[in-house]
Amino acid sequence: MVWDELDCIVKEKPPTSFIKDYFLGFWDYETPKVMVVKNKKLGVIYRGVQFLVITYFIWYVFISQKAYQDSETRPESSVYTKMKGTALQGDHILDMVEYVRPSEGGDVISTILRREVTHNQRQGTCAEHFTVPSANCSKDADCTSREVNFDGNGQRTGRCVPYYNQTFKTCEIQTWCPIEDYAAIWEPALTEAINFTVYIKNAIHFPKFKVLRGNIKPNKRNGQKYLNKCHYNEKEHPYCPIFRLGYIAEQAREKFSELCRTGGVIGVFINWKCDLDLDPSECTPTYSFRRLDLRKNLPSSGYNFRFAKYYSKDGEEFRTLIKAFGIRLDVIVHGHAGRFSIIPTIINTVTAMTSVGICSIICDWIMLTFIDKNDIYSDRKFDDLIQITNSSSSFDYLNSVVLGQKPKHAPRGPPGPSLGNPGLK
Amino acid sequence: MVWDELDCIVKEKPPTSFIKDYFLGFWDYETPKVMVVKNKKLGVIYRGVQFLVITYFIWYVFISQKAYQDSETRPESSVYTKMKGTALQGDHILDMVEYVRPSEGGDVISTILRREVTHNQRQGTCAEHFTVPSANCSKDADCTSREVNFDGNGQRTGRCVPYYNQTFKTCEIQTWCPIEDYAAIWEPALTEAINFTVYIKNAIHFPKFKVLRGNIKPNKRNGQKYLNKCHYNEKEHPYCPIFRLGYIAEQAREKFSELCRTGGVIGVFINWKCDLDLDPSECTPTYSFRRLDLRKNLPSSGYNFRFAKYYSKDGEEFRTLIKAFGIRLDVIVHGHAGRFSIIPTIINTVTAMTSVGICSIICDWIMLTFIDKNDIYSDRKFDDLIQITNSSSSFDYLNSVVLGQKPKHAPRGPPGPSLGNPGLK
Amino acid sequence: MVWDELDCIVKEKPPTSFIKDYFLGFWDYETPKVMVVKNKKLGVIYRGVQFLVITYFIWYVFISQKAYQDSETRPESSVYTKMKGTALQGDHILDMVEYVRPSEGGDVISTILRREVTHNQRQGTCAEHFTVPSANCSKDADCTSREVNFDGNGQRTGRCVPYYNQTFKTCEIQTWCPIEDYAAIWEPALTEAINFTVYIKNAIHFPKFKVLRGNIKPNKRNGQKYLNKCHYNEKEHPYCPIFRLGYIAEQAREKFSELCRTGGVIGVFINWKCDLDLDPSECTPTYSFRRLDLRKNLPSSGYNFRFAKYYSKDGEEFRTLIKAFGIRLDVIVHGHAGRFSIIPTIINTVTAMTSVGICSIICDWIMLTFIDKNDIYSDRKFDDLIQITNSSSSFDYLNSVVLGQKPKHAPRGPPGPSLGNPGLK
Repeated sequence: MVWDELDCIVKEKPPTSFIKDYFLGFWDYETPKVMVVKNKKLGVIYRGVQFLVITYFIWYVFISQKAYQDSETRPESSVYTKMKGTALQGDHILDMVEYVRPSEGGDVISTILRREVTHNQRQGTCAEHFTVPSANCSKDADCTSREVNFDGNGQRTGRCVPYYNQTFKTCEIQTWCPIEDYAAIWEPALTEAINFTVYIKNAIHFPKFKVLRGNIKPNKRNGQKYLNKCHYNEKEHPYCPIFRLGYIAEQAREKFSELCRTGGVIGVFINWKCDLDLDPSECTPTYSFRRLDLRKNLPSSGYNFRFAKYYSKDGEEFRTLIKAFGIRLDVIVHGHAGRFSIIPTIINTVTAMTSVGICSIICDWIMLTFIDKNDIYSDRKFDDLIQITNSSSSFDYLNSVVLGQKPKHAPRGPPGPSLGNPGLK
Repeated sequence: MVWDELDCIVKEKPPTSFIKDYFLGFWDYETPKVMVVKNKKLGVIYRGVQFLVITYFIWYVFISQKAYQDSETRPESSVYTKMKGTALQGDHILDMVEYVRPSEGGDVISTILRREVTHNQRQGTCAEHFTVPSANCSKDADCTSREVNFDGNGQRTGRCVPYYNQTFKTCEIQTWCPIEDYAAIWEPALTEAINFTVYIKNAIHFPKFKVLRGNIKPNKRNGQKYLNKCHYNEKEHPYCPIFRLGYIAEQAREKFSELCRTGGVIGVFINWKCDLDLDPSECTPTYSFRRLDLRKNLPSSGYNFRFAKYYSKDGEEFRTLIKAFGIRLDVIVHGHAGRFSIIPTIINTVTAMTSVGICSIICDWIMLTFIDKNDIYSDRKFDDLIQITNSSSSFDYLNSVVLGQKPKHAPRGPPGPSLGNPGLK
Repeated sequence: MVWDELDCIVKEKPPTSFIKDYFLGFWDYETPKVMVVKNKKLGVIYRGVQFLVITYFIWYVFISQKAYQDSETRPESSVYTKMKGTALQGDHILDMVEYVRPSEGGDVISTILRREVTHNQRQGTCAEHFTVPSANCSKDADCTSREVNFDGNGQRTGRCVPYYNQTFKTCEIQTWCPIEDYAAIWEPALTEAINFTVYIKNAIHFPKFKVLRGNIKPNKRNGQKYLNKCHYNEKEHPYCPIFRLGYIAEQAREKFSELCRTGGVIGVFINWKCDLDLDPSECTPTYSFRRLDLRKNLPSSGYNFRFAKYYSKDGEEFRTLIKAFGIRLDVIVHGHAGRFSIIPTIINTVTAMTSVGICSIICDWIMLTFIDKNDIYSDRKFDDLIQITNSSSSFDYLNSVVLGQKPKHAPRGPPGPSLGNPGLK
C-alpha cells in the first residue's frame, strides 16, 4: 500500500523488530470502520428501530420482567391444614374427626359433605343387584357358579335367590351383605358445612436467598385470639389464613349445594411473589381458588370415595361402609422471588446492547434495497477485493493511485521477510 | 482534515450551527464498512458455515424446539383415582374398601396384593422371637429387665419363658401378643387382582394460556356406559382412562406374580404435549408405566406396609395386624404447552441473526491465517492508526495528500470552538 | 464513482453477465473493515475488558456452571418410608402401627410423640366447656336451643346443666361426650422416640439421560444385615438410609423435647447432584434437614392432628379420640444431572464470542469521548456520506478527486441498466 510504504520511510524500523512488533500489536485496539450515511429517511428508521429495541429492553425486560434480578422459583413449601366445625346429621353429631380425611393435615385434605351409609355389612351370601348384567334369574341354572361379573359385587355361588323382600330373583353372590346398592341409606347433605373453616398454614423457604416466610402475620399480642375468630377475606382480613368452605366455593364459582350433591376437587392456590429488594413485609401471599376436576359434559364428575369402619362382635367382623361425597382441597403453592444481582444485570445489558446491533441489519437491508438506487451507499460500504492473480496489470494499479483510489489489487515487490512492511499488522 | 476543510468551504456553515449539527447528526445512520473478498475458497467456507448455522436454527431451534412459541411446563394438575374389582381370599371376599389405601383417591394409591395377617393381638407379655439377638435364654438372669433390643418387638420384662408351644425358651417381652413373627398367617396372593382396574381422572390447567384439559373424552351419548366397560389400550381405547393392573404391570415390564410376592412401586406417567397452535383436540395425553423402586441386587426391595384394625371387647382393645404387600401407583403428570408468541419469535430470530455473525469470526481467522499469505487482505481489512505525536512531520502529511491517501495525522490550525469543523461528526 | 468507472474499463464485462455476476457475488466473503488504533492506554483497557469477559465465561459459565453440559433437573422420584421402634406408654406398648400415620409409607410420614386421649366418647348430650364464649349459664333461658357456637363443640339443646362434677353450670350441647377439653388425658411424651428410626428409600430417574439411581448402595454380601444395624451418619455411614429421629432433630437444630411438646414439621431434603461425565458411582445423594413450619413469635405453632378409633358395643358406636402431637417428615427430593453435549457447548461458546464484542462498545465510547481530543480517531472510524442531491456542485466533486478524497456525492451519467456497473456488488 502506498501510505504504508511511506510509513516505512518515516518510521525506518529494522526487520529484526518483528517479534517486538507482534507483541506491541497485542496492545492495539481494533474497532470497526463505520460509514455514516446522512440520509434522514434512513436515520429516522434506524433510530425508530433502535428506540423500539431499547424500549422493549428497558420496559419489558428490565422493568416488567425484572431481568436485573437473580430469581428463584419453586420454593420449598410446607403446608399444614386443619378443619373446624360441627354439623348435625339427624341425631348424629359430626365433628372434624369424622368428616375430614386424611387426618394428618397435609396439602390434600378432603371433607365429607354427604354420605351414603351401609350399616352392618357382614361377609356372607346375598342377592346380586338387579341392574348388574345377567344378574336376573329364574332358576339356579341361570347363574354360573364362581363367575365374577366385573360390574357386580362379588363371586356368584350358582344359586338363584329372591331379591331381598322383592318377588323377583337374582343370582346369589358371596360378598359383604347386604350389598351397598340395595341397603345404602342416603343421608342429607351437610349444608352447615358451608360454615366449616379450614386453617391453612404455609411456610416457604427460598434456599438460594435464605428467605423464610409464612402466611401468618406474627403478632404477639392478639395472635391466638385473632386466629380464633377471623375468617379470610381479601379486603378485610388478608392475613387471616382461615377460610370458610362457603367462601372457597364462591371464589371457585361453584354452587355449594351442587358440590354437596356431586363432590368436587378445588385447588387452593397460594401465590408468593417476592421482590426481595423491597421490604420483606411486602412479600405476602395471595390466594386463589379454582375447581380442578372437569365437570362439563363429563360422566362421573365430582369427587367421592368409599371407606369403612370395622367392628367386631363375638369374634365376627362387621363394618359400616360409607360412600362419601365431598370437597377435596388441593393446596398448591407457587412462589417466585427475585433479588438484584450483578451477573444477570450484566448479561441482560450485554444482550440488550447486542440486540441494538440488529437494527443495522434491518437498516442495511432497507438502505441497499430501497434507497440505494445509485449504488452510492453500497459502493462506499463495500470495498471489493478481487483474488490476487499474477496477471494483474500495473495499469490498473497506476490508475488507481493517480486517481486517488486504493487499487483493487496491488502488485508488490518480491514478497519476503527482508522486504516485509513492519508497519503493517 | 483536508476534505473536511473543503467541506467547510462548500457548506459555509457558521460556527453557531454547532448544536443544530449535533442534532442533525443524531439522525445519521451508521453502518459498518465491509470488505468484500472475492476468494472462492473463503466464500465457500463462509457460506457453508452460514448454511450450518441457519440450518441449525431453522431445523433444530424453530422446527424441532418450536422456539417461536411461548411455552409453559408444570401445569396445575388434579388427579383422582379409584379402584374397582373384587377378589376371594379363602372364604373372605375382598372389595376395594379393604385392599385400597388410602381411600381418598389422590395421586398415590396402593392396592394390597398379599397379606400377612396376625389376628387378635392384645397388649400383654409373651415370648420374644428366637431370631432376635440375645433373645434365647435358659434362665431369667439371661434377660435384662427393661432392656429394649432395637430389632426386637418390645421391652423385656426380665423373665425367661417357653417360646409358645416349643421346648426352648426366649426372653419375655411386653408387647402386642402374640408377636407377628410367630403368629402371622401368610395369605395367598390375590392373583385375581390382575383384573382389578384403576380409574385415573386427570385434569390439567395451563394458567398462562388459560387452557383446561382432561383425560376423559367428553361424550354425552355413550359416556358413562363406555367408561363402565372399556379398558385402556394404546391402540383400541386410547381415551379410556381405566387401566387393568395386569396391563400396567406388563407395560412396566414386571411379572405380576413377582409383584404379588414382593410388592412394588409403579409410576404412571401422564404426558401432555400440547401444541396450542393446532386444534385443541390434538392435545391428548399419553401414558407410560415404569417401576420406580429399584430392585436389582438390592436388599429389602419391593413395597409393603403394616396397618391394623382395632376392635374392642368388654372394654379391652384388640387388633388385627396386617402386613400388606402390594402395588403403589404414583401418578406423575408431566405437561408442556406452547403457543405462538411474538416475543420469543423475535428474540430467537435476533439470536439466529447474531449467531450468523459468528461465521465471520471463523472465516476471518481462516482468511488471515491460512489464505492471506501476502497480507493483502489484512492490509485492506485493517487501517492502522498510530498515536498522535507533536513531532509528526508535515512531509508525511503532504505525501499522503499527494498520493491520494488519508494522512496518518493531520496538522491543524489552532484548535478551539470558534474554529470547530462543523462537517465532522 | 471514479474508480468504478475505471474498473469497468479494465474488466470490460458485457452487461449480459449480470446474473452470472450476481451468482458469483454469492460466493464473496464479506468481512468488516477494522481500524487499528495504536494507542497503548486504549489497548490496555480493551485487553483488560476482554480478559474480564473471557475469564467470566471460562471460569463462571464453563467451569462453575458447567455450561458445556446438557442438564436435567426435577428427576422422577419415588420415596418409600418406614419407621421402626417401640415405646412404652405406661403399661401400653406402642409400635409403629400405632404411632405412624399414614401407614402406606409415602413421602410424607408422621410419627406421634405425645397424645391427648379421650376415651369412650359416645354420641349424646353433655355440658359445654366453660371457656367457650357464652357457655356459662345459670338457667335454661341463658342457652339458646339449636345455637351453634363456632368455637364450641356442638349444638346447644337449650338446657343449662352442671359442668360435670363441678358446682357451676354451662349450657348443654349435643356432641360426642364427654368433651375432649374436659376428659382428655395428657399422656407423657414418648421420649424413647428419639431412638426410633426411619428408613427412607429413594429412587430417582432422569428420563433424558436414562439414568436410574437409588440411595441404597447395592451390596450383595452384607446387604440386609448392614441395613438392619446401621444408622445414617454423614461421616461413618453415608450410604445407610436409616435415620434416627434424634439425629434428624439435631441436624434440624431442634430440641427433641421441644418437638415432643408442640410437634413440628421437618423437611428431609435429598439432594442429587450428578455429573454424568464422571463415574456413575460419584452420583450419590446428600441429606439435609430443616424445620419447615415457622415457629418464632407465632401462635399455634407446631404440628398436631386428631383422629379416632371407632368401636361398637351392643350396636352402639363409641370412639377413642386422640389428639396427636408429633413430627411430620416431608421428604423432598432435589436432583440435577448434567452430561456433555455438543449443542449447549456451541451455543455458549458463540455467546462468549459475541459477548467479547461488547468490549468494542465500551472502548469505542472511551476512545471517542476521552482520548480522541483531536477527532483523529472518529475521522478515520467514520466515513461521512451526505445524501445525494442534484444540486451538488461539480466543484466539490472535482476537488475531492484532485485531493485524493472520495467525493461526498458523485455526479453520475444517466443512470440505467445499460450503464450499470457490473463489477459492483
